[in-house]
Amino acid sequence: MYPKPIQNLITEFSKLPGIGPRTAARFAFSLLRKPENDLRLLSEAIIKLKTETRICKNCFNISEEDLCEFCSDAKRDRSLVCIVEEAINIPAIENTKRFNGLYHVLGGVIKPSDGVSPADLKIKELIERIKSNGIEEIIIATNPNTEGETTALYLVRTLKSFNIKITRLARGMSTGSDLEYADEMTISSALAGRREYK
Amino acid sequence: MYPKPIQNLITEFSKLPGIGPRTAARFAFSLLRKPENDLRLLSEAIIKLKTETRICKNCFNISEEDLCEFCSDAKRDRSLVCIVEEAINIPAIENTKRFNGLYHVLGGVIKPSDGVSPADLKIKELIERIKSNGIEEIIIATNPNTEGETTALYLVRTLKSFNIKITRLARGMSTGSDLEYADEMTISSALAGRREYK
Repeated sequence: MYPKPIQNLITEFSKLPGIGPRTAARFAFSLLRKPENDLRLLSEAIIKLKTETRICKNCFNISEEDLCEFCSDAKRDRSLVCIVEEAINIPAIENTKRFNGLYHVLGGVIKPSDGVSPADLKIKELIERIKSNGIEEIIIATNPNTEGETTALYLVRTLKSFNIKITRLARGMSTGSDLEYADEMTISSALAGRREYK
Repeated sequence: MYPKPIQNLITEFSKLPGIGPRTAARFAFSLLRKPENDLRLLSEAIIKLKTETRICKNCFNISEEDLCEFCSDAKRDRSLVCIVEEAINIPAIENTKRFNGLYHVLGGVIKPSDGVSPADLKIKELIERIKSNGIEEIIIATNPNTEGETTALYLVRTLKSFNIKITRLARGMSTGSDLEYADEMTISSALAGRREYK
């Protein structure tokens, strides 16, 4: 339907998450209206994404160096480790400015339907870190959905033999949310985790 | 917050229409998980988008050759020309399989607030086509919004001195829509354009 160079780009854009052919076409036509230099910047940024990044040797975050910005920062608390599914989850924690520990990126969640088993995640490496590093507390911050919970439970079972505190992000009502629209699971969690006024 | 190569790509993706930094980050991280060759395909498709396309000399559609697939197709009806705002609008008309004429891409709409005046659109070139080409009917298919209507009215006024039929796509209820949710303008148009059962 479109000339081949446009169709090719639509095909590639359609591979991005949540992007169908219509949105991909909108992207392609918006790029057509831009100066060639803008296209070059985007094109180069895509190539450099993998050639100029690597995986942090300690926590498996994405990094420009062997150790990521957190693992190489002497001011971070090495006794506290927050476990996340993916590197993309880290800024959400950092933005709170309430966490000063290190991270451990699992690289996914246990999901048998997709063939992802515990052996595919960086769990062995987490155990190595616990064995050698003086970690006192692990905060499990996998997502609050079925796979995230399954993975959290697996971690709790696997790590309970070590003499460390294992915690999980609290479940409850989101700030600004409304009881009327909250789902039952969320309200149940909020009831179970209720806090006393002191 | 993210390593520079990721941040750069997020910045570039955020320039796409309707894409905020969160979606851009999701795109960047989805690309990180892909083989390097996939990134190369996307990167090359972006560069080729402009280097391997040009503008059709006759109708200003995007093309790989001097004349686009429609203008170079001897089977199309040269007496009928459909006027669209942008090349991206053409597939919507083609998909109906009810139009066998040529197109004319205006390259935008009259929008004084953005500094777009009739002189910025391919209207002079449309008049040249009408003068030289044996066109019998012009179908105006600008979008049914304020700018599209303004542009359509301007075209009607400008072209009325030529001995050609000028038509506009019908306005009315969309197929599958619901009276209850339709806006007043749409229902008004549907009333005004009502058709008699025969």
